Amino acid sequence: MIDYLTKLVKEIEPYVPGEQRADRKYIKLNTNENPFPPSPRVKEGIYTELDRLRLYPDPECNLLKSAVSKEYNVGMENVFIGNGSDEILAFAFPAFFNDGMVAFPNITYSFYPVFANLFQTKFLEMPLNDDFSIDVNSYSDENYRRIHRKSENKEEFQRISGILISNPNAPTGIALKLQDIEKLIQNNQDKLVLIDEAYIDFGGETAVSLVKKYKNLLVVMTFSKSRSLAGLRVGFAIGDVELIDALNKIKNSFNSYTLDRLAIAGATAALLDKEYFAKTRHKIISNREKLTNELIKLDFNVIPSQANFIFVSHERIKAGDLFQKLREEGVLVRYFDKPLIDNYLRITIGTVEDLHTLVQKIKEIILNV
Amino acid sequence: MIDYLTKLVKEIEPYVPGEQRADRKYIKLNTNENPFPPSPRVKEGIYTELDRLRLYPDPECNLLKSAVSKEYNVGMENVFIGNGSDEILAFAFPAFFNDGMVAFPNITYSFYPVFANLFQTKFLEMPLNDDFSIDVNSYSDENYRRIHRKSENKEEFQRISGILISNPNAPTGIALKLQDIEKLIQNNQDKLVLIDEAYIDFGGETAVSLVKKYKNLLVVMTFSKSRSLAGLRVGFAIGDVELIDALNKIKNSFNSYTLDRLAIAGATAALLDKEYFAKTRHKIISNREKLTNELIKLDFNVIPSQANFIFVSHERIKAGDLFQKLREEGVLVRYFDKPLIDNYLRITIGTVEDLHTLVQKIKEIILNV
Repeated sequence: MIDYLTKLVKEIEPYVPGEQRADRKYIKLNTNENPFPPSPRVKEGIYTELDRLRLYPDPECNLLKSAVSKEYNVGMENVFIGNGSDEILAFAFPAFFNDGMVAFPNITYSFYPVFANLFQTKFLEMPLNDDFSIDVNSYSDENYRRIHRKSENKEEFQRISGILISNPNAPTGIALKLQDIEKLIQNNQDKLVLIDEAYIDFGGETAVSLVKKYKNLLVVMTFSKSRSLAGLRVGFAIGDVELIDALNKIKNSFNSYTLDRLAIAGATAALLDKEYFAKTRHKIISNREKLTNELIKLDFNVIPSQANFIFVSHERIKAGDLFQKLREEGVLVRYFDKPLIDNYLRITIGTVEDLHTLVQKIKEIILNV
Repeated sequence: MIDYLTKLVKEIEPYVPGEQRADRKYIKLNTNENPFPPSPRVKEGIYTELDRLRLYPDPECNLLKSAVSKEYNVGMENVFIGNGSDEILAFAFPAFFNDGMVAFPNITYSFYPVFANLFQTKFLEMPLNDDFSIDVNSYSDENYRRIHRKSENKEEFQRISGILISNPNAPTGIALKLQDIEKLIQNNQDKLVLIDEAYIDFGGETAVSLVKKYKNLLVVMTFSKSRSLAGLRVGFAIGDVELIDALNKIKNSFNSYTLDRLAIAGATAALLDKEYFAKTRHKIISNREKLTNELIKLDFNVIPSQANFIFVSHERIKAGDLFQKLREEGVLVRYFDKPLIDNYLRITIGTVEDLHTLVQKIKEIILNV
């Protein structure tokens, strides 16, 4: 048979996002969406663009770039706007990583190795501590080669070109302190350090304040979680102008306009409503503490989270079983059938009502074990 | 100085889209936008999604996929949805092209070599005929090696993995007949043939009817031109299920959700309004004929166009000069300072009012030459 596909496309295994089921109504606690709607100002922002849809959007997204630069007190030349933070992470591989190997934790956002395979970048998976925390001291030149040697990866070692850290980490929810991030950057000044802060607004401390000091730091954020705009596909990166220019070169070699007019306007409006943002994220933090306490009472082990999800295991019921039973009961959570974490569930923090329903369902399931 | 950038990002030259000037009000005839707004139903479609923005969009875009499959009488498994047709063209390189060289005309959409450089795919530029038409007979195995040998490209010849043809071609506007497209496909059955039909709705004949017959044909279209939705970023591809699956694998290794909820809903609504579509595209075709006749009267050479733009030169005034003078007069057109076409202007077809203003300005400029 004649074959029209590349070797690459035949070999890669795409990322699989959390399921979006339509067979019945579910309480959706599986894709870390925000349970609250976005700021009401988002609609108003979108309305302003509805009569200009025949025209291409601003490829620079300057309206949004300006709002981000003001919010984070950086120059507009320090801001890159992308179609979700995933697109920015993808662009980082051809821009920064793929002349060498990229290092990231062995338990983290499972899209990282997928990006690496797409852009044919080798990667080095760095072991977490036993408590799932990241050991920043292990990210050193002395260690990379040693960890590579001990790993099952039999590819030849290459210089580490970059480090990719999710902070707070996913799916654990554990955050690194800013001083640890800074230590990591200082110990790796010849490498690009990308901090993926998708979940930073739920209790972590952003590394944006370090951008002026370190030219090798790129911070990536998203509107999907804390700004309740998963449906609008907007992310941004903050870093030295040289890094931002490189991202722009990749983007403009791929697609001149990756954000539509409505996404730019809607995200800008969301960013300007600081009061609403403060209110909803505090509600989520408060619900996280409530859910944590309830689950501890039910004999769960709950990893301390600074994200809008918690990562939990139970001493008597297997995570895979609980996942299935909750789905039968109309509650979707996330289960990763992978080494080290295959007895844990990741549960998105929902509303107080979601939380009560979840706890009630879990109680019933545990009673029947 | 420490360097955080890859060799690739330092070397590539991004695509430069037509200028979007904000210094004054222009008649914008430089980026092939539709002068008419999209169907009024688009807004209604968008309104239906405004209360769901906190939730991720459908990564499969099934609502839109279903509408496209009905409109073009193909299965849903034969449809891929992308963030503009540019994103689909970009994905085609890692999916189909980059195990070999991709062949495309030496005068065509100038994004093609940019995609090739991003994905490190070698390309072969096939000369047009002297009248700027594409010679489909030159796309044969006997010829590729010969043309490569005659070209300035001193890279080693590799097998041709795919062919990329814009139909109608840009910036010439000349369309190939369906029988010529079929001949091209038949002569290249071991290669992927991608027909970029961004401008097909203004008088060309789509190759979608050949998709069932030829497994190596992928047809790519956009909502940016004939559907007046440049600001919404939506494109689609139609082809054999194996080709669509490959595009999905690349997309899902890059970004699970490249279209937001509003783009999916808006584009679907536009596709369903067939009456509006027929009306506006006929107006553009009629305005193209009017403008062509007016410019011929003013001693322009107008290449016969089946697109929403015309490609013109004048016997007395240089294209670069006319471009500058029109800009000073508040009219933006597109000028490409490139060999073979540096004495031509590409002019987007606007409203009747745009057309009259343009002709008036050109008359004044010519009088003063």
